[in-house]
Amino acid sequence: MLSKNQFKYINSLKIKKYRQQHGAFVVEGAKSVLELLNSDYKTELVMATQDFLQKYGSNPSHPAVDWIAATSAEMDRLGTFQSNDACLAVAKTKENVFLRVAVGEYALMLDDVRDPGNLGTILRIADWYGISKVICSPSTTDFYNPKVVAASKGSFTRVRAYYIDLPKFIEKETGNQTLVGAFLDGESLYNFSFPQEGGYIVMGNESRGIGPEVAALIQHRVTIPRFGAAESLNVGIATAVLCDNWRRGN
Amino acid sequence: MLSKNQFKYINSLKIKKYRQQHGAFVVEGAKSVLELLNSDYKTELVMATQDFLQKYGSNPSHPAVDWIAATSAEMDRLGTFQSNDACLAVAKTKENVFLRVAVGEYALMLDDVRDPGNLGTILRIADWYGISKVICSPSTTDFYNPKVVAASKGSFTRVRAYYIDLPKFIEKETGNQTLVGAFLDGESLYNFSFPQEGGYIVMGNESRGIGPEVAALIQHRVTIPRFGAAESLNVGIATAVLCDNWRRGN
Repeated sequence: MLSKNQFKYINSLKIKKYRQQHGAFVVEGAKSVLELLNSDYKTELVMATQDFLQKYGSNPSHPAVDWIAATSAEMDRLGTFQSNDACLAVAKTKENVFLRVAVGEYALMLDDVRDPGNLGTILRIADWYGISKVICSPSTTDFYNPKVVAASKGSFTRVRAYYIDLPKFIEKETGNQTLVGAFLDGESLYNFSFPQEGGYIVMGNESRGIGPEVAALIQHRVTIPRFGAAESLNVGIATAVLCDNWRRGN
Repeated sequence: MLSKNQFKYINSLKIKKYRQQHGAFVVEGAKSVLELLNSDYKTELVMATQDFLQKYGSNPSHPAVDWIAATSAEMDRLGTFQSNDACLAVAKTKENVFLRVAVGEYALMLDDVRDPGNLGTILRIADWYGISKVICSPSTTDFYNPKVVAASKGSFTRVRAYYIDLPKFIEKETGNQTLVGAFLDGESLYNFSFPQEGGYIVMGNESRGIGPEVAALIQHRVTIPRFGAAESLNVGIATAVLCDNWRRGN
């Protein structure tokens, strides 16, 4: 059973301020929790139904974890978390450490992506296409937001995020690495060859796109060719199409 | 002001049964409503703030529309509709008519896509890539569900859906047109050339993929190459990547 303090603690982790204060975040759903337990994240607590606990609770590779049996009613009391399959974990967040992009590697750079569902989807896409680093503007939604973690479908365990002022980062750290940005008025993505030496694929805000400060520093402005009449594509969709064109090559 | 009966009527359109009974559906948000008014859908009623009405209410090209001024409080009373920008319309649905795919044209075929957000996103992608027809299994979520309409961001006005038993449709109607299906164990999408004569891009259910009955009738099983560790891609994302590869060509 969950104590009153544990309940309060888990509930507080819905809010970024408390996630930062406690250095902890929540992972929901059996599949995501299993990915968490198999990752190098430090799990503090797993709260689940008896069935789940009997199956995984005695796993010797997770000795430090506090396992708590709970009923679905208890899980429901935790509010907006979507604990359909009655499993939830609390893990320690990782430090916001500098992510160096190697020669031949591509990272994502996100300028002001606000929707947690979009960021989670982007992490999943990054993970599919073998991208492990995401450089985010400080205004981009928090990596450890429960909705981001849930939408990433476990990919949060394999993709790292780094929050930093993007113009400063670009000036100081990208050197002569390529920045390829998604715009509505760039050159056709189909005619563009992603440089072999690697760099950054830059995506912008849901309604305003890449901001002018970052846009001014981008060498390659590309556009996904449009054949119909839709005004735009969702940022997650556009990210996938850019990654796919990079991986497909010419 | 909205009458009690109008309120009841609009509210009932959240449910498929009543949409079918009344042959009507709801469109929310100023942008989608404007797309609706500029489309060939027959709009019955627009409910909006005074500002919106003053700007668009006297448009002579929409003489038959009933314009109703409403406060945001009244809009809020309509419940789960997301009327952020305080504008909502009711329009007549279109008949479920047979959609013939021409030589050189590609249509989408959806086998049991259940999530309204996914279907809306797929309509938007279809519209971007110039696909105007979507053939859906009867179990695929309803085209006129308010969440589908909202997620399509206006593309519901340019893309038509046709609901029918897919194996029967394939047997009777596709002739020698190509069916290209997304699978996790197909040939690499990057090595596949979409036939010039056109056909169907087939996508499946969110967790189970394309069902066995439809799968048995598909000539080309393709897979989006994976470079990392994510287990799968969302069906909307996968649809965009297939459409992009078709349009990009070789």
